[in-house]
Amino acid sequence: LFCGRAAPPHLSHRSAKTTVDARKQRLRCRAILSHTSAAWSRHNGCMNSWIDELGLKAPIWQSPMAGVQHHALAVAVSKAGGLGALPAAMLTTEVLREQMVALREQTDRPFQVNFFCHTSPAPQAQALARWAEALRPFYRELGLNDAEVPEGPGRTPFSAEWVDVLATAPPAVVSFHFGLPAPELLDQVKALGCKVVSSATTVPEAVWLEQHGADAVIAQGLEAGGHRGMFLSDDLNGQQGLMTLLPQVVAAVNLPVIAAGGIATAAGVRAAKSLGAVAVQVGTAFMLAPEATTSGVHRDVLRRAQGHDTALTRLFTGRPARGVRNRLMQALGPMSDLAPEFPLATAAITPLRAAAEAQGRPDFSPLWAGQHVAAVREKPAAELVAELARAWHASGA
Amino acid sequence: LFCGRAAPPHLSHRSAKTTVDARKQRLRCRAILSHTSAAWSRHNGCMNSWIDELGLKAPIWQSPMAGVQHHALAVAVSKAGGLGALPAAMLTTEVLREQMVALREQTDRPFQVNFFCHTSPAPQAQALARWAEALRPFYRELGLNDAEVPEGPGRTPFSAEWVDVLATAPPAVVSFHFGLPAPELLDQVKALGCKVVSSATTVPEAVWLEQHGADAVIAQGLEAGGHRGMFLSDDLNGQQGLMTLLPQVVAAVNLPVIAAGGIATAAGVRAAKSLGAVAVQVGTAFMLAPEATTSGVHRDVLRRAQGHDTALTRLFTGRPARGVRNRLMQALGPMSDLAPEFPLATAAITPLRAAAEAQGRPDFSPLWAGQHVAAVREKPAAELVAELARAWHASGA
Repeated sequence: LFCGRAAPPHLSHRSAKTTVDARKQRLRCRAILSHTSAAWSRHNGCMNSWIDELGLKAPIWQSPMAGVQHHALAVAVSKAGGLGALPAAMLTTEVLREQMVALREQTDRPFQVNFFCHTSPAPQAQALARWAEALRPFYRELGLNDAEVPEGPGRTPFSAEWVDVLATAPPAVVSFHFGLPAPELLDQVKALGCKVVSSATTVPEAVWLEQHGADAVIAQGLEAGGHRGMFLSDDLNGQQGLMTLLPQVVAAVNLPVIAAGGIATAAGVRAAKSLGAVAVQVGTAFMLAPEATTSGVHRDVLRRAQGHDTALTRLFTGRPARGVRNRLMQALGPMSDLAPEFPLATAAITPLRAAAEAQGRPDFSPLWAGQHVAAVREKPAAELVAELARAWHASGA
Repeated sequence: LFCGRAAPPHLSHRSAKTTVDARKQRLRCRAILSHTSAAWSRHNGCMNSWIDELGLKAPIWQSPMAGVQHHALAVAVSKAGGLGALPAAMLTTEVLREQMVALREQTDRPFQVNFFCHTSPAPQAQALARWAEALRPFYRELGLNDAEVPEGPGRTPFSAEWVDVLATAPPAVVSFHFGLPAPELLDQVKALGCKVVSSATTVPEAVWLEQHGADAVIAQGLEAGGHRGMFLSDDLNGQQGLMTLLPQVVAAVNLPVIAAGGIATAAGVRAAKSLGAVAVQVGTAFMLAPEATTSGVHRDVLRRAQGHDTALTRLFTGRPARGVRNRLMQALGPMSDLAPEFPLATAAITPLRAAAEAQGRPDFSPLWAGQHVAAVREKPAAELVAELARAWHASGA
């Protein structure tokens, strides 16, 4: 749960200090939260320098979205003056290296590379057998060999070999999901000159990220598509909408805060700015762009989906992630504990997904989407960046 | 689930038409959602008249909060130029009548009266016995007679006798939670000259309210404290943050939309306005006001709570409502199905709550609070109204 860090000693080491700090901070937060926009600006003004120094046309960041994009989307966003992103979670080191090279051939604008930094779970034969059993009827229905349900990690956590790839052409920003990597790895990334950011889904996670070396925090509202970045708690009931999470994180840390989750339009950009964000990160809104590699079945679903059609599900990877409901989620229940621990759920789903997609059916695909999916339009990435950039600059907040 | 309406025939009657309408509407929503603020304003401008005609200093509405306020808070808010609210859900008709008289003696400004419009469930001896059994250990611990666990309705739904009370001094606005009352009752309320509003937690609920005669829709984000107003679905996984629900509801209906959920500060007001709200409804932020009747234990909890400390729970009434986690929620699980159907869960909790509160303990109290509880300050209601009103008028959105 603590992304490669030795969590319990770590926490016990900090616990006495944290009690006092937490109290001070709570008082500070309450003071800041009660102030008006002028106070927000003063609070943030002194900390934005590195975000400003990226030299973007406007602080419109593209969310890294493993599985639905490669460097083409990142190039389009960065060229348009936003911050493009390369998701590494489902790549091999070689493919990431190739994509970084391809990206650099097309633009010298800054970009972001994103990694998952979970710890790989211990082998769990029983859980995998139970998962295979649960999926067997679907294997049979699709004419797949149900005696050979694949097992495998599905997602690669950040490790030293990835640092070597980054070193070939260090990106301006390296982002992590599920906390931060171990301190020695983090130091290596920083030594390359990369700024490090990670997602917080609660105030304690934001504070933890600040205390452990993040250069900025992404406040990930419950509205966001894809994986919840939660790493200090697995309690979904404590997850907050961006409307309240964002100002609370802004008040809690002395770092720039990037807003993510449900931002897809000019109005969302203005709202996030007025709640104290110094940048917005936008994902789902890029998924129908021609530069994305979103599959045909996924695109069809995105074109029709409404906000209440999405749900958090752990079926596709083992961790809660937001996507449009489909047959598998309805059949097993989106948060069913039949799925093994992250990231072990994925391998067994893959053949089902491929077979169903070949028939044009989204029944077993992770249809990642945020709660503002209804606002997503089919347009070139550059057009969306320009639109959101205008909204950012037009907003006085 | 349909608040006194004969739901299934109703729905089947509408189903053919709804399919075509739903498609048209989806296209319209997508068109509107993709536009910028100018489009929002045009879209809303023509429909705001009755909200404007209330003559408020600014469209700052106080959320009706049964159990933590009576007319004093409503008077303070209305006098300050907002729209005060009287919650009737836990009152007798006589007490509501008294409160309306008391309110009218102190101000002639407009106000809102709120009702729950659930249908009372059939008797359920088995479920009540199971609930009593689950609570028995706590009864013993507190020295209460566990042979006499009370049963009773807990909350009164809207009915004809309430119309008579309203008729004595019709309020400007009558609001409902959990849908709308039966058509003949609704017509009687409208015949008094009252404007009728209700909460939507999804786009389909907003559309349903428009089709069934609401004069405005409250978009209730997942952040909101107290009861979720959901009435077409009980699926919590489809519940949305205000950041995405609000613009989607604005795009879906030709009615004024009031934003609720997590709005407690000037920044929240600005954000809601930029997302298309024509008014904001603010609840938790008034709970520490001297004019509220919030209990001492509840106030203590509110002063310390952070956003991630709240959770949705059905333990206190039978329906999901957001409050700060306490011992009962931790012991039984906040959404445990041990609690009987709404509103039957309340009666058995009441003695536990009273006994624990007498010892200064919030262990069995419904500690309603929204996710922006950390931003709540102790200040007179008028001061908060003035602050939020300034933010409304200063915002160009």
